[in-house]
Amino acid sequence: MNEFELIRTYFACQGLAREDVIVSIGDDAAVVAPPPGMQQVLTTDMLVAGSHFFADADPRSIGHKALAVNLSDIAAMGATPAWFTLDLSLPSADPEWLRAFASGLFELANQYRTQLVGGDTVRGPLAVAIQLCGVMPAGEALLRSGARPGDRIYVTGTLGDAALALSHRRGTLDLTEPERLQVMQRLDYPQPRVAAGEALRALASSCIDVSDGLYADLGHVLAASKVGAQLVSEKIPLSSVYRRYSDRIGGAELALSNGDDYELCFTLPPARASEMQRILPRCECDLTYIGDIEAQPGLRIVDASGGIYEPKVQGYDHFAGG
Amino acid sequence: MNEFELIRTYFACQGLAREDVIVSIGDDAAVVAPPPGMQQVLTTDMLVAGSHFFADADPRSIGHKALAVNLSDIAAMGATPAWFTLDLSLPSADPEWLRAFASGLFELANQYRTQLVGGDTVRGPLAVAIQLCGVMPAGEALLRSGARPGDRIYVTGTLGDAALALSHRRGTLDLTEPERLQVMQRLDYPQPRVAAGEALRALASSCIDVSDGLYADLGHVLAASKVGAQLVSEKIPLSSVYRRYSDRIGGAELALSNGDDYELCFTLPPARASEMQRILPRCECDLTYIGDIEAQPGLRIVDASGGIYEPKVQGYDHFAGG
Repeated sequence: MNEFELIRTYFACQGLAREDVIVSIGDDAAVVAPPPGMQQVLTTDMLVAGSHFFADADPRSIGHKALAVNLSDIAAMGATPAWFTLDLSLPSADPEWLRAFASGLFELANQYRTQLVGGDTVRGPLAVAIQLCGVMPAGEALLRSGARPGDRIYVTGTLGDAALALSHRRGTLDLTEPERLQVMQRLDYPQPRVAAGEALRALASSCIDVSDGLYADLGHVLAASKVGAQLVSEKIPLSSVYRRYSDRIGGAELALSNGDDYELCFTLPPARASEMQRILPRCECDLTYIGDIEAQPGLRIVDASGGIYEPKVQGYDHFAGG
Repeated sequence: MNEFELIRTYFACQGLAREDVIVSIGDDAAVVAPPPGMQQVLTTDMLVAGSHFFADADPRSIGHKALAVNLSDIAAMGATPAWFTLDLSLPSADPEWLRAFASGLFELANQYRTQLVGGDTVRGPLAVAIQLCGVMPAGEALLRSGARPGDRIYVTGTLGDAALALSHRRGTLDLTEPERLQVMQRLDYPQPRVAAGEALRALASSCIDVSDGLYADLGHVLAASKVGAQLVSEKIPLSSVYRRYSDRIGGAELALSNGDDYELCFTLPPARASEMQRILPRCECDLTYIGDIEAQPGLRIVDASGGIYEPKVQGYDHFAGG
């Protein structure tokens, strides 16, 4: 199978056809017509075998996750995903692998009405890079820099299940089979909070997706907004599985230091809390109040008794010590 | 050096700042404001060590070429490049390598007023993926599908010098030092034909960039346009260095089967030839008439005596036999 047949078979004929895509796969570049008056949001993430997933990982999950992490960035801006391109480096053109990869990719793409409009396939070590464009009304982007003292801090969904899955996979935690299935789903098929991001776009004062761990990612918001924050560790939303093991794994530690759940963390002026209640049904997930923005720089995590809690690991860094 | 310092040092503070970039590197995604009434062109290309360049290749050339191949796709659509994102997989964060890579990248980006607005750096095998967005007036894209019988076929610049450079590097051709320098420049620092693409946008009936070899790439135009073509091998524009070695390397063979020069191949109705003369000064390169589109399918290459010439290699395919 040559490069052109490969593209045609697995990528060119799948997925939906958006009305604003004038030219899709098959020319030198795609042509799209952004809706008038809208701004555009661009993001990219690359996943490399050995670093982000095992080379023998389920290709359906790789396809899903490669798009999900980009959708999560678009969600964190409050934008609506629209078009994406795909770069795929493959050691060989294995039809079975490609079929499963494409099924994971397109299932998620179609869920969010997002169209693959171009890409590049090359022979090389297994790696996937996706670039995603979203659209939104001009001036409504949720930035990291908008948090103000007095704002409340929220997270979507629950944190820490993907970390439990990693611990189980590494053999440092022994889960029952139903527990394992539940948390593996969070790690391998993260659900980007696109609906929540869109609903929060005219409302939140700042937003970020939790991809490096809440401690690290909230830290980016604090730095960009030139503020500090206090979190209450007991308020961190945890799943029932997580709570069952919480004592054995150091409380909220894993949930604070791991980002693979791809939840959103956002801030909101208290005066807008009632508006947030109104948009809640559109978010398709819980929103939990976990702490407050303060003028004093730094991130303080306290427990219910008022004690200061210091996380051991502060987020993932690909080039730490490099 | 951690991931964030690395991004800041080599990528966030270089290059120009376009007025239509609202949010650049440093948030979850970039925000851009496309000019009203314009359509947008999206393309991506990935370069992998071992497949597209040697792992010890000059990083300045890798930075240049990774962007140049994308600019060439935008040029082939007749669009004006605007914003790009960069995915970089690196075995280690080597400051010297990064400095040279960034200098090659930004020199070319600034030349075309194209801004880096986002990216991802990961630890892994050396690989570079760039996604580039261009803009142009609605409906003016140069597609592969517009060639009609009777149209003339043109190429920009000269073909084959990059192939000479590859032959020299592989030891199958022995060039003098000045010759080597001249053709290596074409291979390592290709100059995308952005000005020519923009000038031809309201004029040419079809266009493609020659990245897989003229034989293969013109073949894509013929397939998309459902036409055939006849080329005259002696009309293929060759550099003085190429002509010097032409007899020893099988005439225009290398020039037809290799695409690393990144020239444009376009078609034009004969009635518009005088308009083409008028826009010629804006193209910043020669345009050479090499053959004609015909109704009969297939690509026929004839020599001046009327004999049929059949190229041995028909373009590069990453997964041939895969």
